[in-house]
Amino acid sequence: MPTYKILIEYDGSAFNGWQIQNGVPTVQETIEKALMVLCKERVEVVGSGRTDTGVHARGQVAHFRTPRIFDPYRLRYTIDSLTPASICIKDMWIVHDGFHARYDATLRRYHYYIATHWFTLGRQMRWLVRPMPDFDKMNEAASYLLGEHHFGTFCLTQSETLQRVCTLYKAQWEPELERGHWRFVIEGNRFLHGMVRAIVGTLLEVGHGKRNPEEMHTILAAQDRRYAGYSVPPQGLVLEYVGYEPQNSLLHPNQKLL
Amino acid sequence: MPTYKILIEYDGSAFNGWQIQNGVPTVQETIEKALMVLCKERVEVVGSGRTDTGVHARGQVAHFRTPRIFDPYRLRYTIDSLTPASICIKDMWIVHDGFHARYDATLRRYHYYIATHWFTLGRQMRWLVRPMPDFDKMNEAASYLLGEHHFGTFCLTQSETLQRVCTLYKAQWEPELERGHWRFVIEGNRFLHGMVRAIVGTLLEVGHGKRNPEEMHTILAAQDRRYAGYSVPPQGLVLEYVGYEPQNSLLHPNQKLL
Repeated sequence: MPTYKILIEYDGSAFNGWQIQNGVPTVQETIEKALMVLCKERVEVVGSGRTDTGVHARGQVAHFRTPRIFDPYRLRYTIDSLTPASICIKDMWIVHDGFHARYDATLRRYHYYIATHWFTLGRQMRWLVRPMPDFDKMNEAASYLLGEHHFGTFCLTQSETLQRVCTLYKAQWEPELERGHWRFVIEGNRFLHGMVRAIVGTLLEVGHGKRNPEEMHTILAAQDRRYAGYSVPPQGLVLEYVGYEPQNSLLHPNQKLL
Repeated sequence: MPTYKILIEYDGSAFNGWQIQNGVPTVQETIEKALMVLCKERVEVVGSGRTDTGVHARGQVAHFRTPRIFDPYRLRYTIDSLTPASICIKDMWIVHDGFHARYDATLRRYHYYIATHWFTLGRQMRWLVRPMPDFDKMNEAASYLLGEHHFGTFCLTQSETLQRVCTLYKAQWEPELERGHWRFVIEGNRFLHGMVRAIVGTLLEVGHGKRNPEEMHTILAAQDRRYAGYSVPPQGLVLEYVGYEPQNSLLHPNQKLL
């Protein structure tokens, strides 16, 4: 049964997140509806992870399996034409049968976009932060998060069974080309629910002088949500990239024949 | 009578351009309506230039004169709160009485934003160009436009009395941080109606191999609209900056007292 891997960009402001819920539009549901038209049966679309209401993606990855054989290049166009403008299927491949978008993902990268001055262009995907925070201090604080840690402090979900150890490879504020536009780049093997937005909010408290960079050590060690700062709103958050080990991205040998 | 200079950002997709027209929302009209509430009389807002329907601005400059004396910092907030989210008053100053936003402007900079791969995030301010154009060839072609020339080939307005000589200081494609995102930066002393969009369309014909870069010389010399390429759509175009000679940006001596 062919397994299709798809790369998806979406404008989160049009959806109640990725995951199917009753009665509200979600990205997963919208793509599954398009596949229903093509395959005449429900085909489950499995994403690399959920995104909350209002959160965007430029590099969400998902897979689905169907006995039907499609040319992936044409299928990309077809799904794109069956979904609204707020969803863009950027690429599509037939991959080896065992591929799993969530379990096989080894790297996830998010950006959080802010502006430090009043603006309106692109307000659907950027958050206004006033006054200007101290980016050097925020980067110093962010460096405490690198490596393997228990991220319970930054997790919104209270379930006791959840594994909360993650490894972060990168956590850094970078200026963009536009003056006053900055983005926070965070990269890790996995992320907990609400983790990026709670980290950004906590860093902004450092940037505004309400906490010292060194406090990050204590905040992290507490493993308690009450030690973290506020959560920033979803519109600035974009899932940029999901990475897989090379062997898990192998194309199906039939890819070229189709 | 105090003269106020304002710096405005606006999302052009919400307006039928800058200039007041009957029965349709424009940026000028929206700001004048806010001033009407404050000043109890019509106050004319004079922009540095018009922008077409759908064209955005990050750095539009305008002035208005009113006998009323406002603290410019508070006035910024007040006008911002009286206008929709698609308009942002970024800054405001009281300047010397003779200041004129259009006549005194000596430099204007526009960006035209494109993506070379399917996308959806930020589609309100970027245009999809497929297939990928040759940016080196487009930059070679653009270099023919630098300096003082008659730009009749790139002017939409047919009026015979219009002066069509402009001086371009910069015309160059630059990659952005996001892969596949590019912007065309064009800077000059003045621009004719539809000029940037006709230039970008003509350059894209070069980038797609339909014309040679050297043809730009002939196209420009023709001084005839029929020699230019197509006009690209407005949503990619942003008025980024309007520059003034230092003596024309002088603050009014009372600025600090107000």
